[in-house]
Amino acid sequence: MLRPTVGAIGVFGSCAAIALCAAYVTSSAAQSSKESPAPGGNAGSSNASPIYGVTIPPGYRDWKVISVGRLKTDKVNQLRVQLGNDIAIKAFKEGKLPFPDGAMIAALHWTYVPSEDNDKVLVAAFPGAESFVPGAAVNVQFMVKDSKKYASTGGWGFADFKDGKPQDKTLHEACFPCHEPAKAHDFVFAHYAPTP
Amino acid sequence: MLRPTVGAIGVFGSCAAIALCAAYVTSSAAQSSKESPAPGGNAGSSNASPIYGVTIPPGYRDWKVISVGRLKTDKVNQLRVQLGNDIAIKAFKEGKLPFPDGAMIAALHWTYVPSEDNDKVLVAAFPGAESFVPGAAVNVQFMVKDSKKYASTGGWGFADFKDGKPQDKTLHEACFPCHEPAKAHDFVFAHYAPTP
Repeated sequence: MLRPTVGAIGVFGSCAAIALCAAYVTSSAAQSSKESPAPGGNAGSSNASPIYGVTIPPGYRDWKVISVGRLKTDKVNQLRVQLGNDIAIKAFKEGKLPFPDGAMIAALHWTYVPSEDNDKVLVAAFPGAESFVPGAAVNVQFMVKDSKKYASTGGWGFADFKDGKPQDKTLHEACFPCHEPAKAHDFVFAHYAPTP
Repeated sequence: MLRPTVGAIGVFGSCAAIALCAAYVTSSAAQSSKESPAPGGNAGSSNASPIYGVTIPPGYRDWKVISVGRLKTDKVNQLRVQLGNDIAIKAFKEGKLPFPDGAMIAALHWTYVPSEDNDKVLVAAFPGAESFVPGAAVNVQFMVKDSKKYASTGGWGFADFKDGKPQDKTLHEACFPCHEPAKAHDFVFAHYAPTP
């Protein structure tokens, strides 16, 4: 089983943005990734994230919805969705913390673009209405829970991919420190959106 | 199997908003719903949508993601996600139109609220960053494809629920006319978001 984790799920806009976080990672975490690849990952492969050795889990696009969001900074404007595998979703629904080993979370990020098609329909009935939809894919991030392997980073391994390729080590060094403020929620920023 | 459909999926913000659309529905559609309830629905039940007789499909919160969005008008500000059952998702992935019978689409709408938790983390590294997450659930809408039963409304039955209860007939009369501009995409506004 592949075992990825999200750099700043639900918070950060792009890999470039994440790289701006304090560049820090425990040496033990970096060390352990050199000693043994993540389950399902391949630390020696160009398809695996630096430090954590996490690869893209097949089928993640079909995982279930945790929540959605928008992030806007001077440089970033995105629509985002956070998805979970079955283990993660069960934990969210039950409010179980910490997340059990095997939990995986994906954060999918797209550019935030106006929808002309939608607005054409809306303009008559809703003057001034603005609708926004996903544009191009920006990146996808993963968090993978393995409390033993990733003990020095809260039990989570992280990965950030752009165009199917893992981003660089500097960016990945920022994943865990950025998630530390969410320690009380097992380092996960996303909360399960209510069911309408 | 329950068979619901979305009023203005991916476009309209709330039931109140939808009700502002032209109030029109073919008399044949209205008539047919009186004659026979939707499959899985119960036209005589307070749990079924007016006109179409569609009830809430169990487990829709766990359907797969079609896309996400934001809608903003003077009165509405929402984060939204569109989900599909397996039949709908397969059609989206294959680009198959029209959608086959049995396809169901859900549009989940929440209020658009700033996340103080996220912003606290972002403020140091990203001055001016703003993050937004789902607040309270607003409503959920469904589209259910049944080309025979709903022949007079593009093959789609529609439903809009707030707090688990179907909204009124006037609102549901607006569903199909609002979707007509999307006729070239089988009356569905949402497009499948690219996989990052």
